[in-house]
Amino acid sequence: MAAPQAGDGPALAHSVLLADDGVHVLDRRSFPFERTWVRCGTAAEVARAIEDMVTQSSGPYFAVLWGMVLAAREARGLPRAEARARLAEAGEGFIATRRTNNALRKAVAAVLAGVDAHEDVEAGALAGAIAGDRRYRDRSRALGGHTAALLPDDGAVLTHCWADLYLTETVAAAQASGKRLRFFCTETRPYLQGARLTAETLAEMGVDTTLITDGMGAAVLATGEVSALLTAADRVTMDGHVVNKVGTLGLAVAASAFDVPFLAMVQAPDRLAPTAADVPIEHRPGEEVLSTLGRRTASDRVRGLYPAFDVTPPRFVTTVVTDRGALAPDRLADYYQQGTAND
Amino acid sequence: MAAPQAGDGPALAHSVLLADDGVHVLDRRSFPFERTWVRCGTAAEVARAIEDMVTQSSGPYFAVLWGMVLAAREARGLPRAEARARLAEAGEGFIATRRTNNALRKAVAAVLAGVDAHEDVEAGALAGAIAGDRRYRDRSRALGGHTAALLPDDGAVLTHCWADLYLTETVAAAQASGKRLRFFCTETRPYLQGARLTAETLAEMGVDTTLITDGMGAAVLATGEVSALLTAADRVTMDGHVVNKVGTLGLAVAASAFDVPFLAMVQAPDRLAPTAADVPIEHRPGEEVLSTLGRRTASDRVRGLYPAFDVTPPRFVTTVVTDRGALAPDRLADYYQQGTAND
Repeated sequence: MAAPQAGDGPALAHSVLLADDGVHVLDRRSFPFERTWVRCGTAAEVARAIEDMVTQSSGPYFAVLWGMVLAAREARGLPRAEARARLAEAGEGFIATRRTNNALRKAVAAVLAGVDAHEDVEAGALAGAIAGDRRYRDRSRALGGHTAALLPDDGAVLTHCWADLYLTETVAAAQASGKRLRFFCTETRPYLQGARLTAETLAEMGVDTTLITDGMGAAVLATGEVSALLTAADRVTMDGHVVNKVGTLGLAVAASAFDVPFLAMVQAPDRLAPTAADVPIEHRPGEEVLSTLGRRTASDRVRGLYPAFDVTPPRFVTTVVTDRGALAPDRLADYYQQGTAND
Repeated sequence: MAAPQAGDGPALAHSVLLADDGVHVLDRRSFPFERTWVRCGTAAEVARAIEDMVTQSSGPYFAVLWGMVLAAREARGLPRAEARARLAEAGEGFIATRRTNNALRKAVAAVLAGVDAHEDVEAGALAGAIAGDRRYRDRSRALGGHTAALLPDDGAVLTHCWADLYLTETVAAAQASGKRLRFFCTETRPYLQGARLTAETLAEMGVDTTLITDGMGAAVLATGEVSALLTAADRVTMDGHVVNKVGTLGLAVAASAFDVPFLAMVQAPDRLAPTAADVPIEHRPGEEVLSTLGRRTASDRVRGLYPAFDVTPPRFVTTVVTDRGALAPDRLADYYQQGTAND
């Protein structure tokens, strides 16, 4: 591969690219105001980029896949066992960059599985990374298809934060089947993922897109013009609690009050989390609430609070959409009746 | 009066001052980062300051009171009838600055009543303005006292946007009776009244204050640590709909879902608005949603939507607190059983 190339679809759907000179990562911190790529020449530089939040959401998963390929290149010429050990070590380093992101562990496993299945370590790593990339995209595409089927032929959807490939695949599937969807996006303070990532990506995809502040969701839901509230979930517990970016709960409660269905997208419910008590909620520094895009929004005599996620109880969740189809929040065990391959 | 002087209490409680050289208005657009006073040497300059949003909430009411005194000074030496006509004309100009703000009409009426009750026009205008000032503060103090009585002796309150004197009087009454209240404030995008005005003023008053983004209210309410949701209302209809800054509805619905009472503060329910259909909702330019403190938050391919207010139906309202005491949302007619003097 040569210089970074955007693939089909919106910029953020192909924002981590492998090239001869390293891994190129689209910098989501300044997107969409600048479209800057960070080149990581080594596996260690990929790990640092992940730590520095150059990419987020599904971005770190892809960065680890391709970063492991760089690690395999760096082990070129070593005896197989030693090269494999170096890769495993690099994988531990990647996993440590974001302790709460389970996807990183899966990316490392995908590459090591490729190594173990091939005679040549470097070719195996590449094959494993490609398989991991394809697998994640295929599952997101399946999920998007199932989600699009639940949306109206012509209507408005409210979304919150940034649902990444789940969102782009849902929109692509809806467009392919001729549906005409409009979107309302919350801006999602403090990091403005909705304003910067979601709204921009929807506009790129040709979707009629309206941005609102995080406080306006209930007012929009109350008008009756929204057919569905649609968000990703960072985690769904086996008893139907949806853990997602803070703000989801308030929108879900309002959707319920105004009879709008809430669809939460996740590849699979989490078998390791029977209920909400099994999911610790990350609190980020309150200081991060006190500014926008680097500019202070309150004086320094004020304290901020930043619970990064909230937990929506199943009574406010209409449907959990997975890569195996839509499930009621009280029927999530059904997911694993089709086997455990995807957990 | 000489140079502008803050009175007792927080800066925003005395942010429009009459002096020999004109009316001084604390600029709320840059508060609290800068504490700049705009001097208005003439009644016309006061009107322009109101139009330019130098002050908001109850600020324009006070600005019109004192601006009318400047108009009386400008009419000095004219025959009484002509001076009175000039004042009435100045009053029309003030009322036109903010068509939807009923308080401006009351401020003009207060000053003209003073003129009509005095032999000297200028002295009468000053007496009318002082009476209007005192009346508004007295009613806010009464309202604050009734509100404080409903709050716990030791607990947390969630508030949204900026409730101005209703809030400062509530806090002052609570403090005077030895209550220990903590506050959570939403930042209130796009203008950040919560971050800039409410949080700062509460901190000035020595209240333990925590700022959250507009999407975090439900998460905070769900924790069980908040005793009440407390906001002002721009208007309360006779059948109990609360019209207030957009965002109030979502918080009220979440408060209801998590069994937290919602107290809405208004001096009096609006006899001219039997129900919500009688209150047109102002939409401001959607462009205003696309930036914070002058800095863009989304690219220019995105459209914004800005419904400035939302309407909370009475089923989500626990209590309407007025200057005559607390009323259930379905008993607001009781307010006028004590006479119509305050409508």
